[in-house]
Amino acid sequence: MYVILVYDISIKDHIGSRTMRNVFKKCKEYLNHIQNSVFEGELTEGQVMELKYELKDLIREDKDSIIFFTSKEEKWLNKDILGLNKNEFSNLL
Amino acid sequence: MYVILVYDISIKDHIGSRTMRNVFKKCKEYLNHIQNSVFEGELTEGQVMELKYELKDLIREDKDSIIFFTSKEEKWLNKDILGLNKNEFSNLL
Repeated sequence: MYVILVYDISIKDHIGSRTMRNVFKKCKEYLNHIQNSVFEGELTEGQVMELKYELKDLIREDKDSIIFFTSKEEKWLNKDILGLNKNEFSNLL
Repeated sequence: MYVILVYDISIKDHIGSRTMRNVFKKCKEYLNHIQNSVFEGELTEGQVMELKYELKDLIREDKDSIIFFTSKEEKWLNKDILGLNKNEFSNLL
C-alpha cells in the first residue's frame, strides 16, 4: 500500500530532540524523505504494522504525533509540488 | 476531491516568518489544520486550483515547498494517528 507519513515531534527539551532523531531514522528505514517532516513510499501491510509498532515505542504519546495516510493503490493518489522539490534538489547534490 | 497539504517554509529570515504566517492563513481558509504543517479537507477541483494559484503567489519558489496530495474519493485514503490527536485536543480547548 502507498503510505504518506507526517510527524510532529515536540522539541522543546533535550528528550524531544532525541525523539525527533530516532523517529526520523526509523522512518528513513522504511520510506523516502520528501519534505521536512514528511515521508512517503510503498509498503506491505505487514511493514506498515511493524513501522507503527516501532514508532509507538519511540514517541511520547502526550506530546508527539504521527499521522499515517494509506492508500491501497498509488494511482488513487495524485501528488503536486509547488516551489522547491526536495527530491530533485537531493538529486542535484 | 480529498486534499492533504503539507508545507515546508524556510523561516531563517524575517520574510520567511511572514511567508509562513501568510501560507498558514491561506491554507486555513480552505482546509482543516491537523498537524504542525499539515492540512486536510474536501475541496472541489476549482478550489484546489484557486488555492494553488494563491499559494504560488505567497511562497518563494527557491526556498519553500508545498505538496498537495489529492484523492478523488476520501474513502480511498485511510488515516491513522499515533500519539497526540490534534483535532481531539482542539475540541477539548
